[in-house]
Amino acid sequence: MNEYENYLQFAKGIAYEAGKIMLKYFKQDNGENYKVDNTIVTLADTEINSYLISKVKEIYPNHAIDGEEEQFGESDYKWICDPVDGTAMYARHIPVSVFSLALVLNGSPILGVIYDPFTDNMYTAIKGNGAYKNGTKIKVSDIELNDMRSVSNFDIWPSAEYDIIEVIKELGKKTYFVSPGSIIRACTCVASGEFNLAIFPGKKYHDIAAAKVIVEEAGGKVTSFWGNEQRYDKYIQGAVISNGKVHNEVISILKKYL
Amino acid sequence: MNEYENYLQFAKGIAYEAGKIMLKYFKQDNGENYKVDNTIVTLADTEINSYLISKVKEIYPNHAIDGEEEQFGESDYKWICDPVDGTAMYARHIPVSVFSLALVLNGSPILGVIYDPFTDNMYTAIKGNGAYKNGTKIKVSDIELNDMRSVSNFDIWPSAEYDIIEVIKELGKKTYFVSPGSIIRACTCVASGEFNLAIFPGKKYHDIAAAKVIVEEAGGKVTSFWGNEQRYDKYIQGAVISNGKVHNEVISILKKYL
Repeated sequence: MNEYENYLQFAKGIAYEAGKIMLKYFKQDNGENYKVDNTIVTLADTEINSYLISKVKEIYPNHAIDGEEEQFGESDYKWICDPVDGTAMYARHIPVSVFSLALVLNGSPILGVIYDPFTDNMYTAIKGNGAYKNGTKIKVSDIELNDMRSVSNFDIWPSAEYDIIEVIKELGKKTYFVSPGSIIRACTCVASGEFNLAIFPGKKYHDIAAAKVIVEEAGGKVTSFWGNEQRYDKYIQGAVISNGKVHNEVISILKKYL
Repeated sequence: MNEYENYLQFAKGIAYEAGKIMLKYFKQDNGENYKVDNTIVTLADTEINSYLISKVKEIYPNHAIDGEEEQFGESDYKWICDPVDGTAMYARHIPVSVFSLALVLNGSPILGVIYDPFTDNMYTAIKGNGAYKNGTKIKVSDIELNDMRSVSNFDIWPSAEYDIIEVIKELGKKTYFVSPGSIIRACTCVASGEFNLAIFPGKKYHDIAAAKVIVEEAGGKVTSFWGNEQRYDKYIQGAVISNGKVHNEVISILKKYL
């Protein structure tokens, strides 16, 4: 077992533990107010982050960690984590949230795990070694836009860094757009061929780092809104996550409106 | 126990059985093609419809049934069913689909049940008697637009009867829009205060009949895109499902663009 395989086993162990924590708080009720502070999300986030930091310190004391709200250490090797992606849905008891963890070497994700505790599906990839769902190889679809089977994800939110409404307007004639509320969950669907596209109008690299390696190892493509490669240890310029087939057309449309 | 309470118990029994059928086919794989015919959805739909028809014929032989693809009988009392709402998501193993059944008397829903088998939540209402989630009374939120807690659902699909992209553009600055892929699941979130709005740009009354009575019994409001009451045994003119507070503002914006 090589070093990267060791890292992957470590990451999967963290992911399963994170999934247990997510399920533990999922059924708790925020009450009718759905507070801005999203109490149950905060509880799950904090507990997962603390667990991750303690395990990295124990097993890989020379590595760094970036878990959204909490950072630790400096290293070429950095664990980039999104403890609970899809927090608004999680707080509202819609079971589409996932845990995401990538190991990024000098800005480039070399392995990623995404775990969906609600369907108990574990998505993994090591760069150069293919992408897997529960140990079985997965690949992206070859579905084009303007195909009845085309299902795409987009996200819009009032404070999003990029306004993609005109893009949705144009693409919405060519694909069935959904927005289950977790961009990372949507990326697992691209990797396994269920969606052919996801568009992320934000800058948070935590959301895309693991998906970058998993989707590309499944045969897809992940770039900035301008079609460029980017680092995943600092703010990104949006992300287009696709099966590759539709990528250039989507980038062209984005460029028209940005 | 009055007559309506009997009907409700009957509907709940159907809903739990439908949920079992949904779960049975959910894990089955369509393969990488995600076929246009959506094999697993068809299997679940057909089995649920057959079960519903056989039970209505047995218990209420004078009632009519309208289960999207299958209709049966003529009566002032009509059972309106959406066996699996959110079929594209169901076929792609995203656990947000629900079963919906309403009893409509002369076009007006007098009771409704919506069952989410993935979280095992049963939403019920009899007209005039309040709305319930697993037997506990629920009510809509009082959250306005332009509130950080505002979460709304919209759906857009290439063949949708109404184009609401300009509405989304305007409202998207005031609320966090999601589209989990099942309008009826979104309606349960409005009824229980988790969302404050859902917009349905279609004509299929099967999608809204049960939600109409459940959301309104929870204190919300359900109308056409023009703010009017409508029958739920024939094609509708879109639907705005809200907590009431935001209803008029949304109707005004819709009227501007339709």
